[in-house]
Amino acid sequence: MSTSQGINVAIIGVGLVGTSVISQLTTIPNLASRLHIVALQNSKKTLLSTPASPLSLAPPADWKKLLSNSPTSALALPDLVVELQKITNDSGRHTAVVDNTSDETVAQFYPEFLKAGLSVVTPNKKAFSGSLDLYNQIKQLKSNEKPGSTGPLVYQESTVGAGLPIIGTLNDLIYTGDEITKIEGVFSGTLSYIFNEFSTPKGGDAKFSQIVKVAKENGYTEPHPDDDLNGSDVARKLAILSRLVPSLSTSLAEGYLSVPTHSLTPAPLSDVKSGDEYVQRLPEFDGDYTALNQAAANEGCVLRYVGVIDVEKGEIKASLEKYPSSHPFASSLSGSDNIVAFHTKRYSARPLIVQGAGAGADVTAMGVVADLVRVAERRG
Amino acid sequence: MSTSQGINVAIIGVGLVGTSVISQLTTIPNLASRLHIVALQNSKKTLLSTPASPLSLAPPADWKKLLSNSPTSALALPDLVVELQKITNDSGRHTAVVDNTSDETVAQFYPEFLKAGLSVVTPNKKAFSGSLDLYNQIKQLKSNEKPGSTGPLVYQESTVGAGLPIIGTLNDLIYTGDEITKIEGVFSGTLSYIFNEFSTPKGGDAKFSQIVKVAKENGYTEPHPDDDLNGSDVARKLAILSRLVPSLSTSLAEGYLSVPTHSLTPAPLSDVKSGDEYVQRLPEFDGDYTALNQAAANEGCVLRYVGVIDVEKGEIKASLEKYPSSHPFASSLSGSDNIVAFHTKRYSARPLIVQGAGAGADVTAMGVVADLVRVAERRG
Repeated sequence: MSTSQGINVAIIGVGLVGTSVISQLTTIPNLASRLHIVALQNSKKTLLSTPASPLSLAPPADWKKLLSNSPTSALALPDLVVELQKITNDSGRHTAVVDNTSDETVAQFYPEFLKAGLSVVTPNKKAFSGSLDLYNQIKQLKSNEKPGSTGPLVYQESTVGAGLPIIGTLNDLIYTGDEITKIEGVFSGTLSYIFNEFSTPKGGDAKFSQIVKVAKENGYTEPHPDDDLNGSDVARKLAILSRLVPSLSTSLAEGYLSVPTHSLTPAPLSDVKSGDEYVQRLPEFDGDYTALNQAAANEGCVLRYVGVIDVEKGEIKASLEKYPSSHPFASSLSGSDNIVAFHTKRYSARPLIVQGAGAGADVTAMGVVADLVRVAERRG
Repeated sequence: MSTSQGINVAIIGVGLVGTSVISQLTTIPNLASRLHIVALQNSKKTLLSTPASPLSLAPPADWKKLLSNSPTSALALPDLVVELQKITNDSGRHTAVVDNTSDETVAQFYPEFLKAGLSVVTPNKKAFSGSLDLYNQIKQLKSNEKPGSTGPLVYQESTVGAGLPIIGTLNDLIYTGDEITKIEGVFSGTLSYIFNEFSTPKGGDAKFSQIVKVAKENGYTEPHPDDDLNGSDVARKLAILSRLVPSLSTSLAEGYLSVPTHSLTPAPLSDVKSGDEYVQRLPEFDGDYTALNQAAANEGCVLRYVGVIDVEKGEIKASLEKYPSSHPFASSLSGSDNIVAFHTKRYSARPLIVQGAGAGADVTAMGVVADLVRVAERRG
């Protein structure tokens, strides 16, 4: 093996986030020398580096064309592992797999990547918010906290709040012995936008359904708004964070399904399959939303859809809550920003707060790339 | 050399922060196996680990007594280096020096630590906010961004905002290719407290001098309040952050002295040597402070003492500024919290914000210990 110079990076999923990851890795000078892309894979094709022809993806090269012209059909994951082990041996460099998909199948394969010595870096929430069995396998197999180990690492900063320093901060707090008492935040950019528009300290007469309609039209919601409004995305993020808090780690056997979650979708619409029909019928329920908003306003409060992990009470929930106008969740939140408040023993008088855009390809990719740099620092 | 298991830690300075660092390292189970204290040194004594008698500092051991009873007088720094190199060789482990002092002398010795292969972790601002020559030497000698290197590392998270993720976040933004347009924040816990009390959205009739007096009595200010009110602490933090932003890195030849800094100390008091006399005479100038506050209030604003690094304008300054009541610096700041807003190309619509306690022994020590964990991850 030659002296290692950085690490290899194998990228699964080249959609919006994947494209931004590739862009950052190929165009930022100090990264290109540390993070060497050796594989691209989408649902159709795989493009692999070989000793005879290493991948050269930086502009003016057109990696999209190179991938679509690749003679290799998308490899099954076990076959991809075999190829990546060859590349690892040939290059003398550690290899990290980046999963930019939101696939359950890829997530379930992380243990195999790790057994093959491959690190995993991902914004995909599935592996960390689903079954406890998969989560524990990954936890056992990763070497992040094993002194002196050269084994594979797992980094997942972008699974919550995209590039915002949320997972890293929580890990630092816990690892240095702080005691988490409560984590509370607005974790969905979509629901942040909707309630920042709908429920303001100054009041307002906007209809809930109208705001959802505009959000859908601008692409702020998923194609079917219920995928945001049912709260499952927030529940997944709560499952991820909860599992990092030692005293809560055993309480989520079914992952996000174990998190009590308040759905904002009216019961009669819960079976509507079409996003368009959903938006069309939502005005029938505006009275209910307005009543909630008015009740909050009468108490000098606004509505926010939040996730709460109350360690002292042992309570985890995704729900619609009221906050006084002076609260940071009410007064200083705008747009589609995420905000997270860590209440701890050390930050007891006032919480440690992180706020900013919690979604979007570039900031998600930034979290992924920063994680890759950490792998390169430790295994490069 | 035996297989490395974590790293050695040599601690210079055992005051409030040092005591908290030692407490975290000796009482938190997962840290004790990775971070091995091999030396303690204060201005009087040095306590060293030897192969025959490794240091055992965890309670019920009384490390303060062990240090004061040590037969070894405080070693000159060159002699300490010799001892630490012996310990490094004997143990087969990398060694990091933690400088918990605020000494200029220790800071100036960092290049020698690094030349001897010792990493440096510190909350001491002096080396990063002073002469450009010292800063550049340290930058050259550290291996943080050298792929494949096993050389010494420098981490300094606690030099700005104590344990808040400020330096790490800025480094991640820059390293992944984001472009910083502006960094703006309340960087002094003391000045945060004073202006959060003095200048509120609701107005108020508190006298500036009275708030300073109470702050001094509660130990929120330095013994001489001018050390806070002259803005030099904020200027140092601005110098530190500015130097991390590549496009500004050459503009601070004299460090914090090159940062235009508005002193809050009235000119006639600038030569007053006694903190008590300073506080006694400050009421003479209450009219001036009140007039400023009233002028801000007339515009619907509050006063905040902030640091601004405007990359686009090429401007760095520590100054008293007005913010509208709805601004996060006005509405959601309280107590002695720090708040930092990173405006970047990626976080352009709204900034990435980090907020929380930016001073105090435990949170400062947390930043130090998290940095030590990073060294252990890379060199352990």
